[in-house]
Amino acid sequence: MSAFSEDTAVEPAGEGRWRGELTDRWQTPGGTPNGGYVLSVSARAMAAALPHPHPASITGHYLAPPTAGPVELEVEVVRAGRRHSTATCRLLQDGREVLRSLATFTDLSRADGPTHVAEPPPPLPPRDECKRISGGDYPDAPALLQRFDWATPEEFLGFMRGEKSGRGVNGGWIRFADADETDPLAPVLLADAFAPPVFNLEGVTIGWVPTVELTVHVRKLLRPGWLRGWFRTSFLTNGYLEEDGQIWDDEDDVVALSRQLALAPRPPRPDADT
Amino acid sequence: MSAFSEDTAVEPAGEGRWRGELTDRWQTPGGTPNGGYVLSVSARAMAAALPHPHPASITGHYLAPPTAGPVELEVEVVRAGRRHSTATCRLLQDGREVLRSLATFTDLSRADGPTHVAEPPPPLPPRDECKRISGGDYPDAPALLQRFDWATPEEFLGFMRGEKSGRGVNGGWIRFADADETDPLAPVLLADAFAPPVFNLEGVTIGWVPTVELTVHVRKLLRPGWLRGWFRTSFLTNGYLEEDGQIWDDEDDVVALSRQLALAPRPPRPDADT
Repeated sequence: MSAFSEDTAVEPAGEGRWRGELTDRWQTPGGTPNGGYVLSVSARAMAAALPHPHPASITGHYLAPPTAGPVELEVEVVRAGRRHSTATCRLLQDGREVLRSLATFTDLSRADGPTHVAEPPPPLPPRDECKRISGGDYPDAPALLQRFDWATPEEFLGFMRGEKSGRGVNGGWIRFADADETDPLAPVLLADAFAPPVFNLEGVTIGWVPTVELTVHVRKLLRPGWLRGWFRTSFLTNGYLEEDGQIWDDEDDVVALSRQLALAPRPPRPDADT
Repeated sequence: MSAFSEDTAVEPAGEGRWRGELTDRWQTPGGTPNGGYVLSVSARAMAAALPHPHPASITGHYLAPPTAGPVELEVEVVRAGRRHSTATCRLLQDGREVLRSLATFTDLSRADGPTHVAEPPPPLPPRDECKRISGGDYPDAPALLQRFDWATPEEFLGFMRGEKSGRGVNGGWIRFADADETDPLAPVLLADAFAPPVFNLEGVTIGWVPTVELTVHVRKLLRPGWLRGWFRTSFLTNGYLEEDGQIWDDEDDVVALSRQLALAPRPPRPDADT
């Protein structure tokens, strides 16, 4: 069982209830479990309650910072139809609701209809021209980074050395440390795994980018191996920003589209330590 | 009171409950109330229940076709914080749930933080080079069209005369028939008011495009007068499509971003009349 599947597993805990655990293996540089990871656990509980396995669209609203540890999940089946089914999920820690989600599931293996893709895959250089980071090589890095292998164009890493690209873009090659990961819920995590593209904009502090809402549309079952992520923030207005994501696979197909509403990091206050 | 404000009004009907009415003034060519309009009524009920007036992010999942007539709304306040508050809403007709929504509200007049906009306004020709359609001139048109004045580039109307542009794009100038409309919830309707851009793709039937899920991020309070809408479908895969929208105002500011997951129209079946 892959780390992702293991760490998003839920077990029944009564009518419409599940129990799970946020492990410490998906922590962000800020020290909290990644928001896409937390949403994946909710997706797992909804998948358990619904007749369809794949989230065609899942939205989470973040209510309080999560911490590693047990979670309780309460799922309400809103509608169960032939082609789609809809549910909501409350994810709680110590009785406090951390995440409310709403999703419509389907069976993507039975999706049927026209295909017309107008956008090319992300304009990434080949992997061997990118900065390669094998998460396992950096045992002191935030846990989330260790769960993946990365191949990232140097441009997008500029913010880490104080050389911002000036473009609200981040992207790169990504592969689960479990390289054969095919869990169909994994795109929900991938949609939130990259560093926020807003970090590459001048005048934006590097710091916590609180997600207000994250929506992921899963379009295709996951294939093992390398994927490509492409994330853009085009509209930062009065501290609010969207982050639009694409995940592509090695067949040049889009696996998932995502959008989140988030808040720009707050500049450190001069009196923060008083 | 504007038609939009009047037709989205709700009145209290007990603890966490509201009553409203879907009028026949926002019907689509298919004869049902527009999905953005129905979501606006839910937004109105949530705004009534929450301490913040503006939907920073609102998501609706469409469960059954709406009809003109009375609706009941059940709102649950999920969290009420200082800067944001979150609610869900069930919208029912004759006891059947039509729309489930989840939203986080804020007070946009107090939004505070950096601004950095990377995308230019939509590349639209001036209004006097567009096809002008004053909804009021076409009393037999679907009601939704009559509620607006439109100025649309001929390119985007090609699908109506069997000359598809081949691009999954639609856009144009739009103004409420109540030209001074400033209801802050109106962008929720505007995000779904344009003809689906997928109509301009070859091989796609012109027909009902069922919305699975619609999310709108409102960024700015509405100003009276002309707005610009820009809608794109870049990924139609196995019958699923996203429709990404932007609404801009006459100060060249983005008022709202939207994305919906929808289904491509089904081709008419040869045996449909048997």
